[in-house]
Amino acid sequence: MPAMQMDDLILVSVDDHTIEPPDLFERHVPSRYKDLAPKVVTFANGEQRWTFDGKMIPNIAAAAVAGRKREELGAEASRYSELRKGLYDVHARVDDMNANGVLASLCFPNITGFAGELFLNGQDKDLMLAMVQAYNDWHVEDWCGPYPGRFIPMAFVPLWDPQLAAKEIRRMARKGVRSVCLPENPSAFGLPSVHRDYWSPVLEACTEENMVVSIHIGTGGPPQPPSADSPIDWLNSMINITVASTLVDWTFSPMLRRFPTLTFALSEGCIGWVPFMMERVDAAYRNHRFWTRQNLGDLMPSDIMRRQFLFCFHEDAVGLKNRHDVGVDLIAWECDYPHADSTWPRSPEKLWEEVKTFPREEIDKISHGNALRFFGFDPFQHVPREQATVAALRAQARHVDTREQSLGGGRAPALDPELNVLTFGTMAKLHAALSQGLETA
Amino acid sequence: MPAMQMDDLILVSVDDHTIEPPDLFERHVPSRYKDLAPKVVTFANGEQRWTFDGKMIPNIAAAAVAGRKREELGAEASRYSELRKGLYDVHARVDDMNANGVLASLCFPNITGFAGELFLNGQDKDLMLAMVQAYNDWHVEDWCGPYPGRFIPMAFVPLWDPQLAAKEIRRMARKGVRSVCLPENPSAFGLPSVHRDYWSPVLEACTEENMVVSIHIGTGGPPQPPSADSPIDWLNSMINITVASTLVDWTFSPMLRRFPTLTFALSEGCIGWVPFMMERVDAAYRNHRFWTRQNLGDLMPSDIMRRQFLFCFHEDAVGLKNRHDVGVDLIAWECDYPHADSTWPRSPEKLWEEVKTFPREEIDKISHGNALRFFGFDPFQHVPREQATVAALRAQARHVDTREQSLGGGRAPALDPELNVLTFGTMAKLHAALSQGLETA
Repeated sequence: MPAMQMDDLILVSVDDHTIEPPDLFERHVPSRYKDLAPKVVTFANGEQRWTFDGKMIPNIAAAAVAGRKREELGAEASRYSELRKGLYDVHARVDDMNANGVLASLCFPNITGFAGELFLNGQDKDLMLAMVQAYNDWHVEDWCGPYPGRFIPMAFVPLWDPQLAAKEIRRMARKGVRSVCLPENPSAFGLPSVHRDYWSPVLEACTEENMVVSIHIGTGGPPQPPSADSPIDWLNSMINITVASTLVDWTFSPMLRRFPTLTFALSEGCIGWVPFMMERVDAAYRNHRFWTRQNLGDLMPSDIMRRQFLFCFHEDAVGLKNRHDVGVDLIAWECDYPHADSTWPRSPEKLWEEVKTFPREEIDKISHGNALRFFGFDPFQHVPREQATVAALRAQARHVDTREQSLGGGRAPALDPELNVLTFGTMAKLHAALSQGLETA
Repeated sequence: MPAMQMDDLILVSVDDHTIEPPDLFERHVPSRYKDLAPKVVTFANGEQRWTFDGKMIPNIAAAAVAGRKREELGAEASRYSELRKGLYDVHARVDDMNANGVLASLCFPNITGFAGELFLNGQDKDLMLAMVQAYNDWHVEDWCGPYPGRFIPMAFVPLWDPQLAAKEIRRMARKGVRSVCLPENPSAFGLPSVHRDYWSPVLEACTEENMVVSIHIGTGGPPQPPSADSPIDWLNSMINITVASTLVDWTFSPMLRRFPTLTFALSEGCIGWVPFMMERVDAAYRNHRFWTRQNLGDLMPSDIMRRQFLFCFHEDAVGLKNRHDVGVDLIAWECDYPHADSTWPRSPEKLWEEVKTFPREEIDKISHGNALRFFGFDPFQHVPREQATVAALRAQARHVDTREQSLGGGRAPALDPELNVLTFGTMAKLHAALSQGLETA
């Protein structure tokens, strides 16, 4: 057998994002709620925003830069014309996946928050549930439906009612959904903590339906920078490793001992910090458990981490080097299309550079095998394995233009006058500025 | 030359703690302030607390368990009789260092906070400055003085006035002090952030006096657990890696570009996460700097980290395995006596287990060489090198009893009734309980 080449990679990404098309809710919302569903409003100056329940959602596609000139990025996008079509149109999306050699993709939502938290606090609970269900139905039928084997269907739940959530999980299981998004830290949204029985019905349903709980970075509440002067670069640097806090909190939750076969994917959390964290949590348990009265029985905390977590990365040379200390069966690759950290459209080249010296068996686990096993998803029923490689998929996308384009935008953000960078303190001004002059057309 | 053995190690610890003896301030406070200085009060039930400026300091020696049976640890210690003498008596401390084969030690304060923040907000600024100076004088004269070469002298500063702080730094430099403690995150104490000019006089003085800024974990403000239900085990696991946030914040501070030769020691921050963080901060800068308007000139953020930081660990097998990705010249060992995470009295055995396969040159850098270079401290003027090894020091301590002892204490902490562990929510109750029944004797 000849040595493996980059072109032989099979790529399954466990973290991408749909950007919602403006007509998302139209087909799926019950007629009595049509007028109340989230909708896109175009303002006199051409800017567009999603609105729902009296609120305006700040950005139609936060940090969604795929296909745009990076140097032109400001605080966009503000209108659909500034977006590459592959962000919100599933047919163009599959073209973009092909151009990047990606077989299958797990797509998180965008305007709803990465765990559907937009619908959590609305007053009209029937309306909110209808919106959750409409979104999930759209995702399964309109986004994943036309391309069997190309998307791992996921859903979010009515977070405010665990019994309803369990019911929605079972409803979506029957439609083939393989994963449920939950927030990193429900307490940050006013819900009971991950340590409480409140979550039992939800986690029981996930366990019984063999669904993975996907926890995406950025769903743990507002970032906690050292100060208002901290540059936004602090957040861009810290946002992945912040999930270590989530991992440790869940690890000590009684829920994980109650549902020992339940699994979690830590989406976009990266992996380079994981071996350190496993060593440290065991040391902390060993050194301090007498006075904290912690008791995990026969297990060490790292045993629970290894039993129940999938660690997901987009680029992480350090983590891949230490893959055996993470657990080579616990690592899954991500593309993170269309965000600024994504490797699209050069994912095969970038991943190959990091893994090319590994045994083929390990490369296959990391590039797709672990993901398919964790999520219980079999794309090869629909796409024969020989048609699933980077080379085969890219051959189908010969005419897709992946060059960065000028799509407009590039408004200067609000800089701190002394520090000359965008800080947490000036970010608030930026958000205000972005909403200025928005008069209905 | 025969192969290196554990007994040949030379150990310099860049993170230990003095526990303050009750008479600390007596000799060093100007007579007009004698009555106002911090003092130890003994209550009717035998408990003891430091009091100052109308406040009671919760714990005379938080987490200071050296020499005590770990299983008996509650939320102590509450009286000096529950402490091993080596915690607060420098002669017994040197015995304990000898028994552990440790040549030299950098000792952080305890009751003042690890950066002297106890004195920050007092109303009477003259009194506060006098207390800072009294503490520093005690540390240099009474703690470090009797044992030249055995302690790297450090000081803290009047944080509320950068000019006064610079003056104190220069005063202490003349007394041989080699390091100044600053808090991880001054903003958490109401001070200007690390990005602001406020810190220029302080950092300029450190630069000119070639002093290291020591930043100890736990000085970034209150911990930020996911919820009140999070177990204290969360903090014990996360407290080290939390300093990654501090590192990133300082890295982007204009101060580090203004003072490029200034160095920082990240005390008790560990090292296993460092290679990941260096990779990630560079990726974040590369991917996002256009819209955040960050500009480090010719440098990448990791260049600044490598230029100006010393990474300090007590136990970190993962970090040591990845030492070349951290930078083998940027790593220093710590004992962390007398805290629960300390490896005392088996530090040589534990460190040797982690480093014994390394080249001798690397072991020497990690065990003492980097520390002595960074801190500009030469113990061999006072202790000949052949008398400085683990074997030589332990030979001097043949009669020191290092067995764990029952010293009393072990009060049950306040557990969450449902979760049955000590949580952040019940910790507050615990602190209240510890102060109950404290009636002046």
